[in-house]
Amino acid sequence: MNLDPLRIPDLHDPALRDQLQRAIDNKTKPRGALGRIEALALQLGLILGSTRPELMAPQMLVCAADHGLAARGVSAYPSDVTWQMVQNFLAGGAAVSVLARQHALALTVVDCGVRHDFAPADGLLVRKIAPGTHDASAGPAMSPAQCAQAIANGRQIVRALPGNAVLLGEMGIGNTSAASMLLARLAGVPLAHCVGVGTGLDAAGLARKREVLHEVLALHAGATDALAALAAFGGFEIATLVGAVLEAAAQRRVIVVDGFITGAAVMVAHAVAPDVVQYCVASHESAEPGHALLLKHLGLQPLLRMDLRLGEGSGAALAWPLLESACRILREMASFEAAGVSRRDGGDDTAPGQGAAA
Amino acid sequence: MNLDPLRIPDLHDPALRDQLQRAIDNKTKPRGALGRIEALALQLGLILGSTRPELMAPQMLVCAADHGLAARGVSAYPSDVTWQMVQNFLAGGAAVSVLARQHALALTVVDCGVRHDFAPADGLLVRKIAPGTHDASAGPAMSPAQCAQAIANGRQIVRALPGNAVLLGEMGIGNTSAASMLLARLAGVPLAHCVGVGTGLDAAGLARKREVLHEVLALHAGATDALAALAAFGGFEIATLVGAVLEAAAQRRVIVVDGFITGAAVMVAHAVAPDVVQYCVASHESAEPGHALLLKHLGLQPLLRMDLRLGEGSGAALAWPLLESACRILREMASFEAAGVSRRDGGDDTAPGQGAAA
Repeated sequence: MNLDPLRIPDLHDPALRDQLQRAIDNKTKPRGALGRIEALALQLGLILGSTRPELMAPQMLVCAADHGLAARGVSAYPSDVTWQMVQNFLAGGAAVSVLARQHALALTVVDCGVRHDFAPADGLLVRKIAPGTHDASAGPAMSPAQCAQAIANGRQIVRALPGNAVLLGEMGIGNTSAASMLLARLAGVPLAHCVGVGTGLDAAGLARKREVLHEVLALHAGATDALAALAAFGGFEIATLVGAVLEAAAQRRVIVVDGFITGAAVMVAHAVAPDVVQYCVASHESAEPGHALLLKHLGLQPLLRMDLRLGEGSGAALAWPLLESACRILREMASFEAAGVSRRDGGDDTAPGQGAAA
Repeated sequence: MNLDPLRIPDLHDPALRDQLQRAIDNKTKPRGALGRIEALALQLGLILGSTRPELMAPQMLVCAADHGLAARGVSAYPSDVTWQMVQNFLAGGAAVSVLARQHALALTVVDCGVRHDFAPADGLLVRKIAPGTHDASAGPAMSPAQCAQAIANGRQIVRALPGNAVLLGEMGIGNTSAASMLLARLAGVPLAHCVGVGTGLDAAGLARKREVLHEVLALHAGATDALAALAAFGGFEIATLVGAVLEAAAQRRVIVVDGFITGAAVMVAHAVAPDVVQYCVASHESAEPGHALLLKHLGLQPLLRMDLRLGEGSGAALAWPLLESACRILREMASFEAAGVSRRDGGDDTAPGQGAAA
């Protein structure tokens, strides 16, 4: 399938990188003393094109859809939970609703293909491709045209959102199965390493899930291209997220990736346009075993490791204040000169700062 | 030395623990899906004595003092940086100032024994024991009376602060040396494992620091009691923090511990009153090698691992929103019943919730 033309701006800007590194090193602290916050500040400065980056109007985008494969018993929960949780997101009672409120993240929930008709509601966008994907164990989860439409929807949604940062979330009973198969196919990881308990399968359930996914992978052995694999395994929410990632990067927005499923969307987008990962911040490494392998494949280092396995965007929301902190460090911290703080004993005051403190 | 009488309330409350666990399990998510945030919610609920805990008027307390031992060249920075950084804290340009502003943490800086006379300033408390400790390589860093006074100061300061949560920070050139010796002595860890580069010593500096600390430990071989070791090795800021920890726990306040030096203060307080650790949240594990050993000794699991090595309370401030999130999850997330979300396939609706989601 063909996607609309896309250009991801290259973040290779040695002059800005040097300016940012000097600014960070000249803050009143020993060089490197803020650890990963410093690397994050550098990345955000490069994405936003400024030595004083400011995150504006951050958007939490939660894409939801159902999976035909769920009928094969690959999840601990019934498919109805997808639409029920969408209602919960909108009513403000879900984890992502609570965390988005805490951090003043605008929350948009997208029905990308939930098996339910929602009444119009504030914060809900209906971009439904179909009421759930086809059962991937019987044929492709979606047609190439459906896949391209979902990606186009994701791009259009991001274009219409304000701000310069997007946080990604998702909901879809059965979607760890799709993510596991995408990881196995696109990263060449043995399926057994890609499959976990999802929302909480027991041992028998996990064995069944492994067996079903093995069968589905074999059925679609020819779907080796990233978009073909996406169409084969689903789901509509992942495809919509692929579009969101592509468009956000094209627009130089910061992309905060949540867990395993949003990570799978980034993996597909990365196969289409490798530079998208420069715009991505991995918020956390989840308890789902495939997630660490997925992050490694993308070269992303997670900010948090808190054994989360919820999805929804909850991990992205939890990590959000760290991005804010990184930007504020650049904007608000004093330099050695401005604060009248001595550099290290024998330090060269003309070199980029060697820091100071405890 | 004798401390004023102290009673740390026991948090062993099986009924409240059970209520909290049920409340957490009945939120609309698979059981345990919020990982370490759930354990944190449980702890905060127990400390604050509520299934709907609310953090109020959080206080960032940064204790500063100088160390006589700094004259032996154990730090990459001159002692003057201590008072210069105190000025920077008060002027709003330091990392902890920026992060405290971000999270609306009230910032109090305490001169516990800085070698400088400060003009009165908003946010500055002068509780100076002396202008720096004695050189611990020539005798005890402080007298028993000075040590007891600093601890009493810490207790009094916390009593006078509003709110139900205290975040601990520190500043004092040379204070990783004191923390390393306290760790070696009180946890029985070989000194070589307790000593790191602090603010950024080079290899020769690190070798010199190891040699000096080895000598100082031997000089005070008889200081095996926690308070005797504190008096022997210093410093005034650590002793003041010990008092702050003891009083905060006595008042059932949440204590957010920063890095290696505030951790050393908790270790001394723990030796005096083991129950204090129940009130402590370890915000992060720093790049200073002794810190992981110290946290292990206290049985504390850090929230963040970001290679921080700044002190000041910067790590405590970075982790603060996670505590807020944990409380909000308890207060604001919907239950399965309230949200009308199905429990897992075959789940028992009368048992504590088995969660729902992706």
